Amino acid sequence: MEEKEISRAVIKRLPRYYRYLGELLESGTERISSGELSERMQVTASQIRQDLNNFGGFGQQGYGYNVKHLHTEIGKILGLDQDYNMIIIGAGNLGQALANYVKFEKNGFLVKGLFDVNPKLKGVAVRGIVIRMTDELPAFLQEHDIQIAALTLPKQYAKEMADFLVDHGIRAIWNFAHTDLHLPEDVIIENVHLSESLMQLSYNISRYSREHK
Amino acid sequence: MEEKEISRAVIKRLPRYYRYLGELLESGTERISSGELSERMQVTASQIRQDLNNFGGFGQQGYGYNVKHLHTEIGKILGLDQDYNMIIIGAGNLGQALANYVKFEKNGFLVKGLFDVNPKLKGVAVRGIVIRMTDELPAFLQEHDIQIAALTLPKQYAKEMADFLVDHGIRAIWNFAHTDLHLPEDVIIENVHLSESLMQLSYNISRYSREHK
Repeated sequence: MEEKEISRAVIKRLPRYYRYLGELLESGTERISSGELSERMQVTASQIRQDLNNFGGFGQQGYGYNVKHLHTEIGKILGLDQDYNMIIIGAGNLGQALANYVKFEKNGFLVKGLFDVNPKLKGVAVRGIVIRMTDELPAFLQEHDIQIAALTLPKQYAKEMADFLVDHGIRAIWNFAHTDLHLPEDVIIENVHLSESLMQLSYNISRYSREHK
Repeated sequence: MEEKEISRAVIKRLPRYYRYLGELLESGTERISSGELSERMQVTASQIRQDLNNFGGFGQQGYGYNVKHLHTEIGKILGLDQDYNMIIIGAGNLGQALANYVKFEKNGFLVKGLFDVNPKLKGVAVRGIVIRMTDELPAFLQEHDIQIAALTLPKQYAKEMADFLVDHGIRAIWNFAHTDLHLPEDVIIENVHLSESLMQLSYNISRYSREHK
């Protein structure tokens, strides 16, 4: 099925709409104008209309947006109308932090396994998920239908592990290792490089202090 | 001091140049052509030249780039020629993971304090950094020159904590709480919203499966 290409900038904004609409839903709000949504989100009303028009627009003149409908539709666009089984490779603090995020489960990202090479971690449970050794991965992947692998292991092991996972059928990688993975084109990679985020901060701090000298 | 406005897209690419050049330096490479750098980074050579031209260009015809010089200059642009003192508010798994990243220190981000409200964590040391209770923050901030606060606490406490920190002189916030902080204009905020990153992944998975049905 072909569909209109939506710009990456719009896609990047959708989770934020989804979050605000979710908060409105929880507070019992049934409908909202683009003006009100604009004020809450601190985005211009015209930006909101333009963004949502990418998906056929869900608003009605004089009524505004039906919060529940819009929340559901954006959820569908983001692929949140289905569940994803996820494993986490690397059960250090970061891996355990991810396994502990109940929020992810609420959005349909189910942590099915947590793996490490450290024998001291073997059998330790994080929120009911028992840490397994990575040599159990081939059997585990054969028994379970896993869509996403999060890599929270040191960067020197990340490439080899990513290749291994792709060979075993994984097609989506959430990469926290600070290295670029070069994988086949049909593998989806989402990088979270914390050092780079920190450098955006230092860039802005030093630019600010240069400009206000 | 006024300076040329550099696009956010270029700034976002700089940490990656910095990382690759750092790896080249470590491997003893003294100079590199834009062609070789392009092959390593899987970015076109013309993109590299264009990006680096934003900063006056550091290359010489027929010589290429001096790796050490370019690494140093990009580091300066990113504000990495100075150290930053950082505190982490929220000493759960994520806060402890950040405190454990030795890599940050190498880039000049020094973790000076780790704070939580959970009395069970009081006095626990993470890589030598003792966890303090948040009520010790005012005194701590008066005694120490802190530039960056990382917020790794539940979102319902994030806004109040951010306001408190700004009142106490913090001007840069690295926000992991999944909420938008509305702070004075001179406060620099860098958000890391893991749920949103995960939604980019599910968007791409579901788009891919729709397109290949």
